[in-house]
Amino acid sequence: MIKWQTQIESKFEQMVEMRRYLHMHPELSFHEIETHKFILSHLRKLDKLDIIEPVGERGIVAKIEGKKPGKTIAFRADFDALPIQDEKDVPYKSTIDGAMHACGHDGHTTTLLTLCTLLNENYDAINGNVVFIFQYAEEVSPGGANPMIIDGALDGVDTVYGNHFWSGHETSSIKTNPSEMMASPDYFKITIQGKGGHGAKPHTSIDPIVIAAEYISSLQKIISRKLDPIDRGVLTVGKIEAGTAFNIISDTATLEGTVRTFKPEVKEIIEVELERLLKGICIANDATYDFYYRHGYPTVVNHNEQYEIVKQAAEELGLTYDDIDPMMIGEDFSYYLLERPGCFFLTGSGNESKGSTIPHHHPMFDLDEDAMKTTTAMFIKILEIEGVL
Amino acid sequence: MIKWQTQIESKFEQMVEMRRYLHMHPELSFHEIETHKFILSHLRKLDKLDIIEPVGERGIVAKIEGKKPGKTIAFRADFDALPIQDEKDVPYKSTIDGAMHACGHDGHTTTLLTLCTLLNENYDAINGNVVFIFQYAEEVSPGGANPMIIDGALDGVDTVYGNHFWSGHETSSIKTNPSEMMASPDYFKITIQGKGGHGAKPHTSIDPIVIAAEYISSLQKIISRKLDPIDRGVLTVGKIEAGTAFNIISDTATLEGTVRTFKPEVKEIIEVELERLLKGICIANDATYDFYYRHGYPTVVNHNEQYEIVKQAAEELGLTYDDIDPMMIGEDFSYYLLERPGCFFLTGSGNESKGSTIPHHHPMFDLDEDAMKTTTAMFIKILEIEGVL
Amino acid sequence: MIKWQTQIESKFEQMVEMRRYLHMHPELSFHEIETHKFILSHLRKLDKLDIIEPVGERGIVAKIEGKKPGKTIAFRADFDALPIQDEKDVPYKSTIDGAMHACGHDGHTTTLLTLCTLLNENYDAINGNVVFIFQYAEEVSPGGANPMIIDGALDGVDTVYGNHFWSGHETSSIKTNPSEMMASPDYFKITIQGKGGHGAKPHTSIDPIVIAAEYISSLQKIISRKLDPIDRGVLTVGKIEAGTAFNIISDTATLEGTVRTFKPEVKEIIEVELERLLKGICIANDATYDFYYRHGYPTVVNHNEQYEIVKQAAEELGLTYDDIDPMMIGEDFSYYLLERPGCFFLTGSGNESKGSTIPHHHPMFDLDEDAMKTTTAMFIKILEIEGVL
Amino acid sequence: MIKWQTQIESKFEQMVEMRRYLHMHPELSFHEIETHKFILSHLRKLDKLDIIEPVGERGIVAKIEGKKPGKTIAFRADFDALPIQDEKDVPYKSTIDGAMHACGHDGHTTTLLTLCTLLNENYDAINGNVVFIFQYAEEVSPGGANPMIIDGALDGVDTVYGNHFWSGHETSSIKTNPSEMMASPDYFKITIQGKGGHGAKPHTSIDPIVIAAEYISSLQKIISRKLDPIDRGVLTVGKIEAGTAFNIISDTATLEGTVRTFKPEVKEIIEVELERLLKGICIANDATYDFYYRHGYPTVVNHNEQYEIVKQAAEELGLTYDDIDPMMIGEDFSYYLLERPGCFFLTGSGNESKGSTIPHHHPMFDLDEDAMKTTTAMFIKILEIEGVL
Repeated sequence: MIKWQTQIESKFEQMVEMRRYLHMHPELSFHEIETHKFILSHLRKLDKLDIIEPVGERGIVAKIEGKKPGKTIAFRADFDALPIQDEKDVPYKSTIDGAMHACGHDGHTTTLLTLCTLLNENYDAINGNVVFIFQYAEEVSPGGANPMIIDGALDGVDTVYGNHFWSGHETSSIKTNPSEMMASPDYFKITIQGKGGHGAKPHTSIDPIVIAAEYISSLQKIISRKLDPIDRGVLTVGKIEAGTAFNIISDTATLEGTVRTFKPEVKEIIEVELERLLKGICIANDATYDFYYRHGYPTVVNHNEQYEIVKQAAEELGLTYDDIDPMMIGEDFSYYLLERPGCFFLTGSGNESKGSTIPHHHPMFDLDEDAMKTTTAMFIKILEIEGVL
Repeated sequence: MIKWQTQIESKFEQMVEMRRYLHMHPELSFHEIETHKFILSHLRKLDKLDIIEPVGERGIVAKIEGKKPGKTIAFRADFDALPIQDEKDVPYKSTIDGAMHACGHDGHTTTLLTLCTLLNENYDAINGNVVFIFQYAEEVSPGGANPMIIDGALDGVDTVYGNHFWSGHETSSIKTNPSEMMASPDYFKITIQGKGGHGAKPHTSIDPIVIAAEYISSLQKIISRKLDPIDRGVLTVGKIEAGTAFNIISDTATLEGTVRTFKPEVKEIIEVELERLLKGICIANDATYDFYYRHGYPTVVNHNEQYEIVKQAAEELGLTYDDIDPMMIGEDFSYYLLERPGCFFLTGSGNESKGSTIPHHHPMFDLDEDAMKTTTAMFIKILEIEGVL
Repeated sequence: MIKWQTQIESKFEQMVEMRRYLHMHPELSFHEIETHKFILSHLRKLDKLDIIEPVGERGIVAKIEGKKPGKTIAFRADFDALPIQDEKDVPYKSTIDGAMHACGHDGHTTTLLTLCTLLNENYDAINGNVVFIFQYAEEVSPGGANPMIIDGALDGVDTVYGNHFWSGHETSSIKTNPSEMMASPDYFKITIQGKGGHGAKPHTSIDPIVIAAEYISSLQKIISRKLDPIDRGVLTVGKIEAGTAFNIISDTATLEGTVRTFKPEVKEIIEVELERLLKGICIANDATYDFYYRHGYPTVVNHNEQYEIVKQAAEELGLTYDDIDPMMIGEDFSYYLLERPGCFFLTGSGNESKGSTIPHHHPMFDLDEDAMKTTTAMFIKILEIEGVL
Repeated sequence: MIKWQTQIESKFEQMVEMRRYLHMHPELSFHEIETHKFILSHLRKLDKLDIIEPVGERGIVAKIEGKKPGKTIAFRADFDALPIQDEKDVPYKSTIDGAMHACGHDGHTTTLLTLCTLLNENYDAINGNVVFIFQYAEEVSPGGANPMIIDGALDGVDTVYGNHFWSGHETSSIKTNPSEMMASPDYFKITIQGKGGHGAKPHTSIDPIVIAAEYISSLQKIISRKLDPIDRGVLTVGKIEAGTAFNIISDTATLEGTVRTFKPEVKEIIEVELERLLKGICIANDATYDFYYRHGYPTVVNHNEQYEIVKQAAEELGLTYDDIDPMMIGEDFSYYLLERPGCFFLTGSGNESKGSTIPHHHPMFDLDEDAMKTTTAMFIKILEIEGVL
């Protein structure tokens, strides 16, 4: 591994340059035109790579086939940015108004491109094959993972790995777990249809604000009484809007919210109860409703064998490793894990002294670029444990 | 009137004695055996009276026909007592365990018996007829008024008057109003049927306590949102019972309560909404229910002409008179007013110095006996205004 | 009166013209520049009138002093319009975008101007004085009535009358009542300050939507449990806004609403309980709040003597008259009635065949112009009963 | 092990007899007089045992010291019964009215006594020491475990094991887990003090039923919003009582309930929030409260090394083994695990054909007595793995 560490170190200057270029030129999910070209231009310089693109709408899959036979291991990096205004004061600040790599996907992409370069340079060491999946549109459901898989991204792949930098963990610490790691996040929108009228004449109206209030209180019971206490779920109404004037009873109230679960059966209970309660409370109050429920990404469920490999990799690299509790956020890496054994892990990128501990999706978010070296080493070590290097 | 005042005064000693005798021998509604005999024995001493009994189950109607023709005016007194333990320390304290004239019906009866005596003695002054209705069972729905009317108590009657002593008003003040005076009090009982289970396993149960809580909060809206704000109604859940152990989810929750209204259409809204809400909330929570609603006495609605007579009587007697807001309590005098024009009025019996301002239905309740003279005078004055004296 | 009826009839063409001109040129409350000039130009043509203006910010008071002494009677008309888009298809449709005489104030003003003309023409018949109050800004609290009174509008006035056309009542029917006629409408705005966060992490946040829901349900109890059931009050939350995204827990929730009452003590209970509940529920949920409560116009309380005069006037004119239940809307005519005896009454303007039964404040509202004749006759008849004509 | 299996088999008839005797003579927690004597009389027949008693109030600790040195391993059985009426129709039905071994403690005790006998008979095979803990009062907090430990039950003990039969699992299957296995169950009692009054006069009262309803709805939020969704907790109000009559507003409402948690910090959040909400809602409604919270047994947390031993024992015995999710019930075996490394496991006793799948604490509960053989074998296998046999 010493050899690899030296090689990684020698690429670091380039990595920083590449990541900062991407940071300055973020593109929103499903609109990654220039980023796609940028990645392609780099990949095309590497002579051992087969490139397939577009995979799905805008993805790129590169593949390196070793001379000797062996397993086929895939790594995935996502490359879309967020609709957030960059408020950092750094030379590599976003140049695009209202767009920002506030989640570190610039770093993910840089890391995977660097892995491509390193393996291209060490072609002879490869026993088996390595697949590099550059994915568009992770941030916005329905995401790019599923269409890329349908389009063949995992063809021939034995196992698949992915990584996310994490500002809340100390730089270069590794965390994952052997099973449910990230939640399935759903969206719902509810319109309660009452009957408007004058604020002084409630009896001639059906007040949707009072009904919505009753409903919001009532649905707390779904988590507190309807789920097995051993199971986990979150149900949040994030937005409510009703009424245009203080003295008019409005016709409708609109609620939007999110449901987070790990198990399909728990998700189903919440979805069913959300509507059952809504229906009952509307009957109770002589109102009607619209109920829209959209299923988000599936749960990220790691596979035990690949989890052990990630853990072993971290330990062999001398990195701090801890199992992590399931996280309530979503990730479309889940689709890869539904198709192939694999593991998704977090590489810490939080460094107080560099100001990189600010939460993801925050206008001041930044990456400790050292974390990119760590992930590159993790990927190489995984290939070693998998027997490909 | 001076002559009458003197005569009333001369009867006062007897009135006090009679009222105290009754006070010592209270009998519960529908069980007024001895009281019935006591009244009869007095009436039978009066030679000008025709007595009909029993009217209904246990009522007595006495009638005096004047020599000269004229209107027929009825007065009603009720004679049942309450299941309350007398806690006063007076020589005429109730001798019956768990029964007490805590509402002043002993005084009502004494007053009406005294009126009988006085008119018997002044037989020649009567132009027309006077009917004396001694009613059993006012305190407990369905009450004695309705069966007595069905049995002929109001036959031939032109107008009907009733009185209630009222400890909350100063002795001898008179209050009534020209329309809705006392509410129609209904009863409801609700059982919410959930599904019991272990307190640690809410998801395998349907928790009726949580549903009952939701329902009780929800039904506040009936008064606040479903009634015309100009209308009046009270809805009280007086009793809730659910569960036998802190760690067991029970099968059922039981609620009992009362509804008070003045208008049938308001009553109907409340009854309908009570069940609509219950149904909806049970659907919302996958539970079922029993809903029982019992209509109580109708609203006491005075008639304008007789109201004016009562007011005039009070003024001519030099008594303090005020119109009163509708009261949320019930009275089966309402049945008489549905059949004949008439008026129900309150005679104040509250006198701080005599300790007679304690609320009705209280174990320390007592009557300012002077109020009996006032009501007797009122009845006579009403007869004068009606042209019968 | 026959003479008067003929004279009123002879003015009708002019009235319609004037009312339609005003209807085409509505001006919003506190912005009645041209309307003010229009009224003035008419008044200045009348030689017997003394004109004072501006009274308050933009009001006009005209006075006619009869040759012979007598009482001083005031009439008031309001002349502001509403921020509503006129959607009628008539030649006299509003020419001002977003402004409309959707409440009939154009008719009130026309009627009062016509009364000025008629009395000017019949100057010799007047015993006493008549005051004509043309008021700006009735629709928007704090309104024009109070500043006009402060500025002397009622100086020397003995009694005061006002009228409102009412599309819900049949044309030319008269309705009022002897006491509380229109409510006192208040405004409140509440901000609940929680603590925002990710929708998947409720435990790190304080969710203001859930708190607002709890509060809205809880405040139903103010009407249902805290008011004497005999009293009247309305409490409506007309507007709620919270959250910007379905998956983010917001920092705050904002509620706006109205309170309608007739008695100051009932208003006070509601105001106090609104804040008590808010405070308690915020303590319960570890949140804070802002509570803003603005008192609107006082209750319109008619005086009995002037009520009898209005009733008598209607009867003598052969109009349909009924007492009306108190109405939950507000009117700043209340200020005049706090200072002088008087009565506010409704003149029906609803005529199915003319399409004038559409509710006030509706984009299709229109007036049955015949009602203006009725009100003019009512004003003249009132002056006769008051002894001024 | 074959030798042991044969020996266990040879004791089975005795075991059944002993267990049925105990089943017929159940004694309630803290009242186990005869059971205590019964156990003692058996132990005293075994010559290699040192007996200490009473340990705590009524416990018995027996110890067998092997000739050769080694580890000291403890096993615990509980011997109290439940206040349940036995409704089974079997010859060994409980003879004590209102008491029943409805949880299988008769089987636990029989199993441990049998282990004593077997080890006594195989004294020479023992390298180290075995401690037998016969515990009273497991069913009723504060339980017998803690006082027995204080009184020395674990003195010199290296590791400790316990077992519970489980009718919900197939006979002879073994289940446990490496960490949190059973919850910490707490008790709370809340009295809300309002102000009683007549049901028709809510405004003069403070209605505790309405407040309790609001509170019960509100506290659903503790689980749904205040806990980290990754954590687990149950909060159940099992009992509510308020009011004596349908038409009287009562003074107080009383709630009792239970809280189940695994982590002390989660328990603390629930306890704190329960009172915070109560306080706030009482402030909101002008009421006061009493809040009583009693901490129950700690969480049963297994130790990883002993968990592995139990798992290995099950596997070596060829039994079905599965990890189990944490259970929301409580057990005072937790106290032993706070003091020494150890593991608590479940032995399935559910056999459809024998009717032994009825839930524990049910009047029809029965044990598949075969399970006693399994547990005995498990104990012996554990001793083998621990190196004591």
